[in-house]
Amino acid sequence: MGFSFELIKKDSAGPRRGRITTPHGTMETPVFMPVGTKATVKTVTPEELVECGVETILGNTYHLMLRPGHELIKEFGGLHGFMNWKGPILTDSGGYQVFSLANLRKITEDGVKFQSHIDGSAWNLTPEFSIEVQEALGADIIMVFDECPPHPSTEKYTKDSMELTLRWGKRSKDAKKRKDQALFGIVQGGMYRELRAESARRTVELGFDGYAIGGLSVGESKELMVEMVEAAVPYLPEGKPRYLMGVGMPVDLVESVARGIDIFDCVIPTRCARNGTLFTSSGKLVIKNSQHKSDHRPIDEGCGCYTCKNYSRAYLRHLFIAGEILGLRLNTIHNLHYYMTLMAQMRRAIEEDGFQEFRAGFYEQTGASKLEQISRSI
Amino acid sequence: MGFSFELIKKDSAGPRRGRITTPHGTMETPVFMPVGTKATVKTVTPEELVECGVETILGNTYHLMLRPGHELIKEFGGLHGFMNWKGPILTDSGGYQVFSLANLRKITEDGVKFQSHIDGSAWNLTPEFSIEVQEALGADIIMVFDECPPHPSTEKYTKDSMELTLRWGKRSKDAKKRKDQALFGIVQGGMYRELRAESARRTVELGFDGYAIGGLSVGESKELMVEMVEAAVPYLPEGKPRYLMGVGMPVDLVESVARGIDIFDCVIPTRCARNGTLFTSSGKLVIKNSQHKSDHRPIDEGCGCYTCKNYSRAYLRHLFIAGEILGLRLNTIHNLHYYMTLMAQMRRAIEEDGFQEFRAGFYEQTGASKLEQISRSI
Repeated sequence: MGFSFELIKKDSAGPRRGRITTPHGTMETPVFMPVGTKATVKTVTPEELVECGVETILGNTYHLMLRPGHELIKEFGGLHGFMNWKGPILTDSGGYQVFSLANLRKITEDGVKFQSHIDGSAWNLTPEFSIEVQEALGADIIMVFDECPPHPSTEKYTKDSMELTLRWGKRSKDAKKRKDQALFGIVQGGMYRELRAESARRTVELGFDGYAIGGLSVGESKELMVEMVEAAVPYLPEGKPRYLMGVGMPVDLVESVARGIDIFDCVIPTRCARNGTLFTSSGKLVIKNSQHKSDHRPIDEGCGCYTCKNYSRAYLRHLFIAGEILGLRLNTIHNLHYYMTLMAQMRRAIEEDGFQEFRAGFYEQTGASKLEQISRSI
Repeated sequence: MGFSFELIKKDSAGPRRGRITTPHGTMETPVFMPVGTKATVKTVTPEELVECGVETILGNTYHLMLRPGHELIKEFGGLHGFMNWKGPILTDSGGYQVFSLANLRKITEDGVKFQSHIDGSAWNLTPEFSIEVQEALGADIIMVFDECPPHPSTEKYTKDSMELTLRWGKRSKDAKKRKDQALFGIVQGGMYRELRAESARRTVELGFDGYAIGGLSVGESKELMVEMVEAAVPYLPEGKPRYLMGVGMPVDLVESVARGIDIFDCVIPTRCARNGTLFTSSGKLVIKNSQHKSDHRPIDEGCGCYTCKNYSRAYLRHLFIAGEILGLRLNTIHNLHYYMTLMAQMRRAIEEDGFQEFRAGFYEQTGASKLEQISRSI
C-alpha cells in the first residue's frame, strides 16, 4: 500500500474533505498531527494517542538525528518500531529546527553547517543528508530540506532564500531513494504575497506528492498568516494534500481549513497542556487559577476524554500546583482530545455542507478574542 | 463491609498468607502498597496501577493536609473520590513526615508544632488532629500518631519517645469517631531489642485492628532492621495484620515476609524508576548505562508488564537521557509490576509450602549482594 490522496468532498467556499492513504494506514483530512519531537508525543503512550483520536504524528529530524541518531533508529525498524507507533508518521526535514535551535549556524549553497545544541558536535545538514536521515527514520511522509527565513526579512533576503529552498527542493527530490515514502515540497516566500505565489507555482512545477506551506506562525499577525496562505493555495493542485506547517491555535485551524488546508501540526495542544492551559468548547481555561480550587466539574462538561470522564478541575489544579506528572498527562490527553474533536467536527461539517455554520458557532461558543476574530473577516 | 483479616495459611517457619477485607475491597497478603504521597502514585493512573497488580495504595497525611488540604479532599468523597482510586487506601499519621520534612519542629506532650515546608504556615499536629485529618481523607486503614526517633538515638531518648508514642497511640484510639476505618497501632523502640519488645507488648495491650512496626529503614544496617523486626513480631497477635512501614528493597521484602510481615509500603519502586534504576528477575539495571544503547531486549525478558511487552531497553534509555516523561512512566510501570509480581510469587510460595525454596531461588537469580545476603543468615 503506497501513498495516495483522495479528495472526498470540496466545499465551494474552500474547505476540503479528503483521505490520505500511507503504508501505515489512512488519515482523514483535514487532519491535525501532534508533535512527537524526540520519538514520543510528550507524556503519552501510543495507545493514549489512539484513544484521543490521533491518526498521524510528526517526528523531528533535527532532534532525532542528534539523539539517539537516525542510524540507531533505523536498526529498530525506523521510528515506527523504535517508539511503537503503528500509524502514519510524517518527519520534517530539520530545516526549521536548525534555524531555531542550532548554534554557530552557517548557510551555504550546499546546506547548513551547525553545532548541536546538545553536545556542540559539528554537523552539515544538506538536502541529501536530510533525505538520508528521513529515509532511515522511515516515516510515511517526508519533507524537502528548506530554509526558513527569519521574520521579519527583507524582500531581497526572502527572495534569495526562496530560490535556495527551490534548489534544495529539487536536490531533495533527486536524493530520494525509497519508494515507500511520500515527499512533500515546501512553499516559502516569507511575508510577501508575490513570493508566496511564485514559490507555490515553482514548487508545484518540481512535482511532489503533497505541498506544505512553511515559514508561517513565526511571529507575524494572524491576518498576515492568513494572507500568505491565501496567496499560496490557488497555485497548489487540487489533487494533492496541503499542509500548513507548525499551525496552530484552534482558531487558526478553523480559518486555515476554511481556506483549503488539509494537514496541520503544532506543539500547542501538548505544550499548553504542560503549562496548564486547557482548551474547552467555551474557550481557554488556566487550571492553576484559584477559581478551580474546589470545582467538582470536569475541564469541559461536554468532553468525553479520559480526563474529563474521571477527574475534577480541583484535582487537576492540585496535581498541577503540586508539580505532579500525572497532571501533565491528564492535561495532554484532554487537549489532544479537544484538537482531534475539533478536526472531526470540521470534517463532518464539510461532509454535511455546514462548514460556515460550524465556523460561526465556533466563534460564538469559544468567545474568540477580537484579535482572533480579525482573521475571520479576511 | 467492614475491616477484617483472615489468616489463610501460616508456614511453620514464619511467613503468612492472608486476606484483608476493607470497605473498598480486599488485599491478598503479603501485600506491597505503592506510595501515592500527594493523591497520585507518581506518573501513573489508577487504571495502570490495577494493570500492574496493585490492590492498595498509601496516602501521606502530612502532605495532603498541607496541600490541597484534608477538608477540600473530604468534599470530594475523600481521597478515593478525589483521586479516582477505587481500591483500599491506607494513610499514615503524618508522624514520620513531620520529623523528616517540616521546619522549626517542636515536640511536646500535646503533639508537634511545626512550619509547613511549602509555605511556612504554622501547624500543630496532635494525635487528635491526625485522626481528624485521616477521617477526612477517608482511607480504609488509618494509623496512630507516633514519634519517630532519629537514628541513632540514645536508649533514654528512645525509651521516652516510645512512651510518648504509646500515650499518643491511646489518644489516637480515643479520638477516632468513624466506624468504617480500621486503626493500626505502631511499634517503636528504635534500635533496642528490649524496647521493641516492650513497645510491641504494650501497643497490643492498647488494642488495634493491626500493628505496624515503624522507625525502621532509617539508615540502620539490614541486619539491625531484621533484628528489630524479630524482636517485635513474637509479641504481635497472630490474628491481626503486621505492617512494616517504609520497607523496602526486594530483598527486604523477602526477608521480612520470612519473618511474618504481611504489609509493606515504600517509595523505592517508584522513586528508583524515576531515577532510571529498574528491578529485574536477575537483579538491578541502570537504564542510562551505555551498554543498553542499542539493546533490542525489553528490561526483563520474562516480564509481562506493558513496558516490557512494547519497548526496548534502547528506547527506554533514549527517553531517560532525553528527559522524556514517558520514560519515567514506563519505568514506573515496570518497577511496580516487578514488586507486585514478587509479592504474588511469595504468596504462591507460601500457599504451596515452598517459601524457603523461593527465597533461595530469589538470591540465586538476583545475585543479591554480600551485604544483602547477611540478613539471610540471621
